[in-house]
Amino acid sequence: MKEIMAVIRMNMVNQTKKALSDNGVDAFFAREATGRGKGLVSRDILEGAEKGYEEAVALLGDKGRLYPKRVLTIVVPDEKVDTVVKTIMKVNITGKPGDGKIFVMPVADSVRVRTGESGNASIE
Amino acid sequence: MKEIMAVIRMNMVNQTKKALSDNGVDAFFAREATGRGKGLVSRDILEGAEKGYEEAVALLGDKGRLYPKRVLTIVVPDEKVDTVVKTIMKVNITGKPGDGKIFVMPVADSVRVRTGESGNASIE
Amino acid sequence: MKEIMAVIRMNMVNQTKKALSDNGVDAFFAREATGRGKGLVSRDILEGAEKGYEEAVALLGDKGRLYPKRVLTIVVPDEKVDTVVKTIMKVNITGKPGDGKIFVMPVADSVRVRTGESGNASIE
Repeated sequence: MKEIMAVIRMNMVNQTKKALSDNGVDAFFAREATGRGKGLVSRDILEGAEKGYEEAVALLGDKGRLYPKRVLTIVVPDEKVDTVVKTIMKVNITGKPGDGKIFVMPVADSVRVRTGESGNASIE
Repeated sequence: MKEIMAVIRMNMVNQTKKALSDNGVDAFFAREATGRGKGLVSRDILEGAEKGYEEAVALLGDKGRLYPKRVLTIVVPDEKVDTVVKTIMKVNITGKPGDGKIFVMPVADSVRVRTGESGNASIE
Repeated sequence: MKEIMAVIRMNMVNQTKKALSDNGVDAFFAREATGRGKGLVSRDILEGAEKGYEEAVALLGDKGRLYPKRVLTIVVPDEKVDTVVKTIMKVNITGKPGDGKIFVMPVADSVRVRTGESGNASIE
């Protein structure tokens, strides 16, 4: 079992969810994050830019431009990792910096609270 | 040492914290997330529903109904994993879909910044 | 490859980012979290205190005082873990409770969406 943590563009979340759903991957959750590349940018400026304030966006400039991010967390059986990674890549590749990163992390176990099922049965 | 990531209902956070505290588990943090089951729902609708807008709640419908979630992250010594999982289950079981999931992840090491302690000493 | 998850004070994020950047560690993202130590505090009070409402801050009191937190997530090659941990500690030590915790977690793999690079090449 693996946790797949995908840091992607905000406006790609729904397409990514749909593509994953089309490939039989249904259970996951999303959360906000502020991603950054090279260069130091204050959180205030970043937050302003996320809200669309033009001054903040201008301050970010072209170098070290920041892209507000969403983080999708998906836990799948080992045999689905490849499908999930390829699906996320296919949807999110634009060829421009900021397309995102996908991390694959080991998961020792999983439990569905309602039924007490553990292991792969709990995430199917 | 293990990280336990529990995705539970928003309104169960305080009861869960209290139950964990009663079992000697004190240090953890919580964050927001938007959980989903089967079916595709747009983030806007979800956010509207989280804020209680009836139209958004209606759009969610009965199928693929979404439950706003909180994610508790707790890091404990291996020997406490079982207690933590059972405590979270006991508090959160209602028998209805959306009771949540608990993931157990390996942790290589932990450091308490103030003292430099590492390993189990840093999380006691 | 390791994920380093640092739970630090809100007002230390920029200094920490700068120190990491000065040590050649550039790619990471930050998210909000509500940290707690010993003692049970309701989320409402915590949120009020985070927003600076004096009544909420007073309710927190001296015992079990809460510190709003930020969580930095950084993924680095194994040989950089030590530098990152020491850099975070150096910036964040004040000697008072609430300086934060650093967790080191195994990462199975990483992929840069834009190029398809995996492994260390994807996080350099």
